[in-house]
Amino acid sequence: MNREKLIDLIKSRGSFLCVGLDPDLDKIPLHLHEYEDPIFEFNAAIIDATRDHCVAYKPNLAFYESMGLFGWQSLQKTIEYIGESHFTIADAKRGDIGNTATKYAEAFFKNMAFDSVTVAPYMGSDSVKPFLEFEDKWVVLLALTSNPGADDFQLEIMDGGVEKLYQKVIRTSCTWGSPNNMMYVIGATRPEYIKEIRAMVPEHFFLVPGVGAQGGSLADVAENGLNSDVGLLVNASRSIIYAGRDEYFAEAAGSEAKRISAEMKLILQKKGLI
Amino acid sequence: MNREKLIDLIKSRGSFLCVGLDPDLDKIPLHLHEYEDPIFEFNAAIIDATRDHCVAYKPNLAFYESMGLFGWQSLQKTIEYIGESHFTIADAKRGDIGNTATKYAEAFFKNMAFDSVTVAPYMGSDSVKPFLEFEDKWVVLLALTSNPGADDFQLEIMDGGVEKLYQKVIRTSCTWGSPNNMMYVIGATRPEYIKEIRAMVPEHFFLVPGVGAQGGSLADVAENGLNSDVGLLVNASRSIIYAGRDEYFAEAAGSEAKRISAEMKLILQKKGLI
Repeated sequence: MNREKLIDLIKSRGSFLCVGLDPDLDKIPLHLHEYEDPIFEFNAAIIDATRDHCVAYKPNLAFYESMGLFGWQSLQKTIEYIGESHFTIADAKRGDIGNTATKYAEAFFKNMAFDSVTVAPYMGSDSVKPFLEFEDKWVVLLALTSNPGADDFQLEIMDGGVEKLYQKVIRTSCTWGSPNNMMYVIGATRPEYIKEIRAMVPEHFFLVPGVGAQGGSLADVAENGLNSDVGLLVNASRSIIYAGRDEYFAEAAGSEAKRISAEMKLILQKKGLI
Repeated sequence: MNREKLIDLIKSRGSFLCVGLDPDLDKIPLHLHEYEDPIFEFNAAIIDATRDHCVAYKPNLAFYESMGLFGWQSLQKTIEYIGESHFTIADAKRGDIGNTATKYAEAFFKNMAFDSVTVAPYMGSDSVKPFLEFEDKWVVLLALTSNPGADDFQLEIMDGGVEKLYQKVIRTSCTWGSPNNMMYVIGATRPEYIKEIRAMVPEHFFLVPGVGAQGGSLADVAENGLNSDVGLLVNASRSIIYAGRDEYFAEAAGSEAKRISAEMKLILQKKGLI
């Protein structure tokens, strides 16, 4: 999906919600265990219930890989089930040397038709650029993540006290691609930084995890991160997919996605973006 | 595999060679395409031919994931085929927030019985520690990688010019685990740094890629990186597995592994380590 289509989708739906599909066999409703592929049944029900309220889906690969072959199968069925109506993010946080990065790009862009993949910056340009060579596909680069461990390295000051590591990552990497094929992961738990990063890269989309279970505020993220093309995809995973844990789990997920989406619509209207 | 067993294995075999299993359908000999699972046939032949000359195998996950479900199946069969006689490294370069890191750890340590997994440090302590909670399992943390992109961030100077990012990563992370459950990835293409890193963490094992196709020198790596427990696993992938491209590919791989292993034995003997 290219940038123009993504922006159209967001504006026409009045939502910049991304639903994180992180299914866990220990957490999904018990009655689903009767199905041959409980994970796919769970995802399909969540997708049906949330489809009209969100613009993107983000399966986190770890949850599928931890189930081995069956998990991989569930993931493939899930991505096919989503189809082309939504922007899809393989939350894989990959990053490896050139010839290996190309293989990962093939895995997610060719075999599974994801629109984008999350990539870790530690190994530098040749670990990221191979992902940028696919038309209408995106790199979502980790910049400032939502977890406590982000303090360990990302917020450390670099050479001469001029900038922090995450700033260096953004400043360096924004020349590798363009706002048409790169986004940045900026955690919602650090709203004080979103404004400053928006000033650094005014046009890039940000994928913002950390609203919901991790405690970030949607209003703060929007206030600091919106640009004239909206420029945000805000992700919620656990707070949506586990909103209910009984046979009405999908309805509960749908309600929660609808609630967030309504809040987003109001924000976009107030800002005159829709 | 615990540290003691790993050291015993290395010393008894007189080798610290790790064979990288990065199979590519476009590069494996044509006649293997007749088999139902060409990738597994290729790996099994390579393993049979190199088993006596190496102490570890390192499948790079990208090469399997790029083939989807079939690749995942080939990987599972490969890891079972290796068995417990060798140290196994899932070269996955994962790194994600706590609950997700636990899922990745389950994927590699429980479902597939790998001894270790490569992990990226960018997201900090809570992205690494969940992997350290499995007995006799190891984190192999990216520190200074062998690719050109390592210059972009890893070699950048941090706060006040005191240390570079890779040094900060090593100094910080070496307290998260111990030399019994953490190793570091240090590229062979940067021998000038290996000596200095050995001084920083005298006991930790280093996994050293970049010998072979990437041009690093075994003698330089050994000179700078060996410690009294050997402390090195030197990986070669393409230079071994593609040493031959015809029906005698396994013999060629075996010869190349034997050649490197013999060089290692000589080095270990000269240093009085065996």
